[in-house]
Amino acid sequence: MSDVVPPEVRPKPVVPAKPSNVGAPSPSIPIGTHGPNLAISHAVGHGLGSTLLGYIGIDTIIEQMRKKTMKTGFDFNIMVVGHSGLGKSTLVNTLFKSHVSRKSAGWARDEKIPKTVEIKAVSHVIEEGGVKMKLTVVDTPGFGDQINNDNCWEPISKYINEQYEKFLKEEVNITRKKRIPDTRVHCCIYFISPTGHFLRQLDTEFMKRLSHSVNIIPVIAKADTMTLEERQEFKQRVRKELEVSGIEFYPQKEFDEDMEDKSDNDKIREAMPFAVVGSDKEYQVNGKRVLGRKTAWGIVEVENPNHCEFAQLRDFLIRSHLQDLKEVTHNIHYETYRAKRLNENGGLHPISSSDTQESNL
Amino acid sequence: MSDVVPPEVRPKPVVPAKPSNVGAPSPSIPIGTHGPNLAISHAVGHGLGSTLLGYIGIDTIIEQMRKKTMKTGFDFNIMVVGHSGLGKSTLVNTLFKSHVSRKSAGWARDEKIPKTVEIKAVSHVIEEGGVKMKLTVVDTPGFGDQINNDNCWEPISKYINEQYEKFLKEEVNITRKKRIPDTRVHCCIYFISPTGHFLRQLDTEFMKRLSHSVNIIPVIAKADTMTLEERQEFKQRVRKELEVSGIEFYPQKEFDEDMEDKSDNDKIREAMPFAVVGSDKEYQVNGKRVLGRKTAWGIVEVENPNHCEFAQLRDFLIRSHLQDLKEVTHNIHYETYRAKRLNENGGLHPISSSDTQESNL
Repeated sequence: MSDVVPPEVRPKPVVPAKPSNVGAPSPSIPIGTHGPNLAISHAVGHGLGSTLLGYIGIDTIIEQMRKKTMKTGFDFNIMVVGHSGLGKSTLVNTLFKSHVSRKSAGWARDEKIPKTVEIKAVSHVIEEGGVKMKLTVVDTPGFGDQINNDNCWEPISKYINEQYEKFLKEEVNITRKKRIPDTRVHCCIYFISPTGHFLRQLDTEFMKRLSHSVNIIPVIAKADTMTLEERQEFKQRVRKELEVSGIEFYPQKEFDEDMEDKSDNDKIREAMPFAVVGSDKEYQVNGKRVLGRKTAWGIVEVENPNHCEFAQLRDFLIRSHLQDLKEVTHNIHYETYRAKRLNENGGLHPISSSDTQESNL
Repeated sequence: MSDVVPPEVRPKPVVPAKPSNVGAPSPSIPIGTHGPNLAISHAVGHGLGSTLLGYIGIDTIIEQMRKKTMKTGFDFNIMVVGHSGLGKSTLVNTLFKSHVSRKSAGWARDEKIPKTVEIKAVSHVIEEGGVKMKLTVVDTPGFGDQINNDNCWEPISKYINEQYEKFLKEEVNITRKKRIPDTRVHCCIYFISPTGHFLRQLDTEFMKRLSHSVNIIPVIAKADTMTLEERQEFKQRVRKELEVSGIEFYPQKEFDEDMEDKSDNDKIREAMPFAVVGSDKEYQVNGKRVLGRKTAWGIVEVENPNHCEFAQLRDFLIRSHLQDLKEVTHNIHYETYRAKRLNENGGLHPISSSDTQESNL
């Protein structure tokens, strides 16, 4: 007969763990005889002498997780959307300091603009500091380039959902892979044309439709075509329009987990959309080698925060929110897709044999 | 029309990323025009001067993951099995340096041995170095204490499977919790009576049956009742019997991921089962405060590797394999349960409304 005490967590005032008295047992927390028992014990850290007895070592779990991550590596999938000529490939190359975009992968630089929106994904494995990242850049040539751009977001929306579907099918499989390959788009960078005036109708239409299924990060492309004042005014107008249109770009307010998150993310949201310049060419400026664009009147330094906001975008995207982008994709966007999918037509049935890839849809 | 290039990873020889030449584009990796494109680029680390341009920052993902783990904390559930009087509660208290066992939670120390096997779970939140662990200790009083111990493992097996079932139900739910509460038993410490002779029939029966559904770590209890020679001989005999009976205790050979794992785990397997002594009493030995047991002929120091193998058990359990215990439970034992469950009777259907907790079983 099993008599299970449900392990519910009910926080109690913190009581430091008292070292046992010699010879006498000392129950450290007064607890009733029934129901779940809970105490919060503080171990005092490690060291010699009186605290030696206090160190357990549970904080080593961080190190244990780090070792596992370094062994397995992780996936990151980034999509770039915007009409041709906005510097999408260049920006991605600049972000990851390597030739990772579609164009750099050897595909003809002067290939024609396709007649419909195409989806082209290119993968690279980037290793840094012992950590391996499999980066997939998904390009969308043809978007916004036609005379009639009706529904040009559909192939993109379809691709995003196809990745969720792929993951879902693996997840409901009876015999699952230990690590389901993750091709879901973690981040979609939307390039806004630096017209200096307003968002285009296509911009708002796309972002409105897709912000509910993927993390959208709008950027103002080719920021060096505007002066600093023009840039600031344009940014304000764009932000106003995004707000009025109800477009929730990443980091979305509703997913802030706590006050610390909210405070950090508020600062970022206020600075967005970042006005960026990309470049894969190096120049010497004041004895330093910088990535930049050389003009007759000076060199635009990509990583100089006075020149453009590329460094801010990079720090935000890679150095502080990389993991969060994946988590929001998995916990929110994917779950939304999954719930919708399982609710329709009686849902998705687990595949009963690993041979037949048919499933009841 | 979507034209997806599947992002398959095919390792290629490592090519260091060349910094772009001034003025000319330099494709770094020769690649064909069709099919998946893959390159391995090495970023050279960070620093000033020529490597400044190399640092992307993807290794900061470790730090990002650390921050998230410290915010959410983690669960760890440990079960102790063995007949009464083998020092189970004391050992758990010694492992986690706090009164976390059932007996310390205030339940009567001298309560009667129950007539059937009971399952009693007690939870505590332990915090150390900023990391919060919700530790649940599952005790099994009554195991092996009856005159007739037939099938006394059944309530234990049932409890373990009930936790898998709970998790599975949450996982197939249409609207899932962001973080499914994890009550699955990550580790079952089985206490072997220090008879000095052989394993008891109950020992082999239990471990044989349960080693396929939970990670079993056998320990020789009350090791101070034997001399070092007696201990070594006993250990050899026990290990021989475990091998002959085909009992795969944790860390299981078949789950070693690579040569490094195999090498580390081989050393541990050769030293198991650890002969342990537990104590929550402090004494002064050579000016140091130690946990120990005072006898007329000396003090048995629990954490002294010359006296017993408690420290080895603790380092193994907490400081090196804590995360792995959870992963093997999740990736192997839980998946085995899930596959079995989904294969029977048409399986488990996702719950269609969050109101009704009924599911088609």
